[in-house]
Amino acid sequence: MRIIQAADWNLDRKVDYGTPDQLNSVKRIVSDVRYEGDTGLLKYTSEHDKVELIQEQLRVTEADISQAYEQVEQSFLAAIRQAASNIRRFHKRQKRTSWMECEPDGTLLGQIMRPLKRVGVYVPGGKAAYPSSVLMNVIPAQVAGVEEIVMVTPPATGGVEGINPYILVAAAEAGVKEIYRVGGAQAIAALAYGTETIAPVDKICGPGNIYVALAKREVYGTVDIDSIAGPSEIVVLADKWANPVYVAADLLSQAEHDEMASAVLVTDSMELAQAVSFEVDRQLQELPRYPIARASIEQYGAILVVQDLQEGVKLVNRMAPEHVEIITEEPMEWLGLIENAGAIFLGAYSSEPVGDYFAGPNHIIPTNGTARFSSPVDVDMFMKKSSLIRYSKEALLTNGAAIIELARHEGLEGHARAIEVRLREQSYDKKELHNES
Amino acid sequence: MRIIQAADWNLDRKVDYGTPDQLNSVKRIVSDVRYEGDTGLLKYTSEHDKVELIQEQLRVTEADISQAYEQVEQSFLAAIRQAASNIRRFHKRQKRTSWMECEPDGTLLGQIMRPLKRVGVYVPGGKAAYPSSVLMNVIPAQVAGVEEIVMVTPPATGGVEGINPYILVAAAEAGVKEIYRVGGAQAIAALAYGTETIAPVDKICGPGNIYVALAKREVYGTVDIDSIAGPSEIVVLADKWANPVYVAADLLSQAEHDEMASAVLVTDSMELAQAVSFEVDRQLQELPRYPIARASIEQYGAILVVQDLQEGVKLVNRMAPEHVEIITEEPMEWLGLIENAGAIFLGAYSSEPVGDYFAGPNHIIPTNGTARFSSPVDVDMFMKKSSLIRYSKEALLTNGAAIIELARHEGLEGHARAIEVRLREQSYDKKELHNES
Repeated sequence: MRIIQAADWNLDRKVDYGTPDQLNSVKRIVSDVRYEGDTGLLKYTSEHDKVELIQEQLRVTEADISQAYEQVEQSFLAAIRQAASNIRRFHKRQKRTSWMECEPDGTLLGQIMRPLKRVGVYVPGGKAAYPSSVLMNVIPAQVAGVEEIVMVTPPATGGVEGINPYILVAAAEAGVKEIYRVGGAQAIAALAYGTETIAPVDKICGPGNIYVALAKREVYGTVDIDSIAGPSEIVVLADKWANPVYVAADLLSQAEHDEMASAVLVTDSMELAQAVSFEVDRQLQELPRYPIARASIEQYGAILVVQDLQEGVKLVNRMAPEHVEIITEEPMEWLGLIENAGAIFLGAYSSEPVGDYFAGPNHIIPTNGTARFSSPVDVDMFMKKSSLIRYSKEALLTNGAAIIELARHEGLEGHARAIEVRLREQSYDKKELHNES
Repeated sequence: MRIIQAADWNLDRKVDYGTPDQLNSVKRIVSDVRYEGDTGLLKYTSEHDKVELIQEQLRVTEADISQAYEQVEQSFLAAIRQAASNIRRFHKRQKRTSWMECEPDGTLLGQIMRPLKRVGVYVPGGKAAYPSSVLMNVIPAQVAGVEEIVMVTPPATGGVEGINPYILVAAAEAGVKEIYRVGGAQAIAALAYGTETIAPVDKICGPGNIYVALAKREVYGTVDIDSIAGPSEIVVLADKWANPVYVAADLLSQAEHDEMASAVLVTDSMELAQAVSFEVDRQLQELPRYPIARASIEQYGAILVVQDLQEGVKLVNRMAPEHVEIITEEPMEWLGLIENAGAIFLGAYSSEPVGDYFAGPNHIIPTNGTARFSSPVDVDMFMKKSSLIRYSKEALLTNGAAIIELARHEGLEGHARAIEVRLREQSYDKKELHNES
């Protein structure tokens, strides 16, 4: 793995937002499903997934779920249950409640927090089907109180009627009761606009290929969407005390995700840099996903040597990585200086997979430098807020003049008059109005 | 004002997202400013705002601000200070703090809340320059703890070197210290990419015309943006106890905003419907912004008569309006049934302008039915979260097997090994490594 000076590292990365052909194809699929409903869904499932379904087969049945449970190992079930429990516990801590402040003059001001009503979760098929991502998308929605969580995932050959049984078990453990075998841009369109079989949702989340990403962007506004994830990233900030075997293994665990993934070590120790470089090359040879990891390390991997860790932290903040591991003598020392990072892992035993699978915090985290302004998936993302305002007659009499003053300065006389009619003697008394009837 | 049956009301509205020509023009401006910096900024300021500036005149000076204070009335100053104080107080209540949970085995899990570092606020020029919107955008950012809040607003003839003095005073009262006389798509590009004079920001917010909206959409991803606001909306839910003079005045205060604004009364009382219809027509004649309000009422206004208020509430939830006023005998009775609304005003004295200007909750609220899944501007929108994960050796020994199990089921052997190397006897001991050096 290459060792370079920090100044020589290009912090900008190019991200694929799809070709015009892909976008046109997605626009056609979305429009067809919007106007043809299930007919469009089945047409594209046949065309793209090469699976012939009839309308009644779209929804996964309870029998399918039971069958999936029979196919997974008890050890998997135990592990996913523990993970789900940890994730649920962490996310419950995020949940916020409505609040109100009441003044003696009768004024009430507050914020009402409510869950979204219906949310769709996309789960990719094939090799990118990750049971852990099912938990990470569904549990925050469930903790938020979303009543209806619907999952869509493309049918494929093999498994329970074409769906990976680990995915079905993860969904059931997370509490999903409504699952459809449909994927791609057609699934996103169905969730946004609804079909005869699938009722429309308020928000769509979950990862997918470029067609899914483009379709989410296309329906945004009609429904809410989560952010479009870029390739995964890790930066390890380490000093001479770090174990190069651990550091190398962590870099490779990121690199094996995808050729575009980025794994970077930032260190003030040339000695560690050399040991990690050697270890990455050694461990890489033995990885089952060697071709992917090698491409990632060669293109987007680097060991950056800095003068001191202060400079290293500045570099981390400029990269604003999805994940940062701090493996130094005193990791807590640096925490307050990390301004931009989606998830921060402290110390030698907090390997990124601890967070990817198990500890409880969400593993869906801002990529591509967007940790500068965005956040990991959480319960807030499945809730909405309404402001609450109640002014009493007394409060309006006290403050009406100031409100009128401000409205007139903005040239909005109608606003001023809406206050004024309430300050003047009332031309209609509600009791009178009622008595006249 | 027309009275119609609820079933005959079209809930869908068409919203303008700009023409291809406008989009191309915006793309060119954004690209020019990105690569030409201040030169591009000054070029477009000359071309679009017809104002010739030199680089040194871009930034508003302290002398400009002092001059603005001399131009505004004391009554305005007093009113804006009271409004700012109310808004600050309400938004402080929203601010969240970092948290951490510590387990006996050494595990630390938490969420770190941090303000964004630098935020840009766009303020439109001319008649759409609203001091109240300056407060509503700036104060939440300030309460969040954003260090650098920068404001941009187009120069025009008249006022302090081309900027409305009320805007400058509102900005100063809200605590803005960095203001530039630049507007349009060029201002958005400068905020996103930076120029010699204007440093780039992490998030851009504030309303603007279609060019500003398209430019925000164009730079989204490089920076965060707030949502693109549609035309303003009010739904008044009222029964026979409501005062038709108040209801009509509130509908008109919405209608005067813009021809596309929508004002709807939902009532179970035909008597009220008729009285409001009469009152709207009467009050409309006397409004200074009569042509705008009339166009809005004619195109997007309606009085919908429903069987009972239960049906009315369902209609409100389907419309998911920006503002809803509940003017009924017992407004609290209906609050728990309102699922979708940006801001809820309770009772006869809670006229919408109370919230637009003064009470404290934000007046930037989801439009166009997006209250189904989004929320008024708040302090959260100027903060970001990082997850914090620290596992001890003990915690990893206890849970390592489950993590490995989950990683292997996803085919991510590199993830499994990152845990495994830490469970095995360590091949490098950090002390050893250090001693060897």
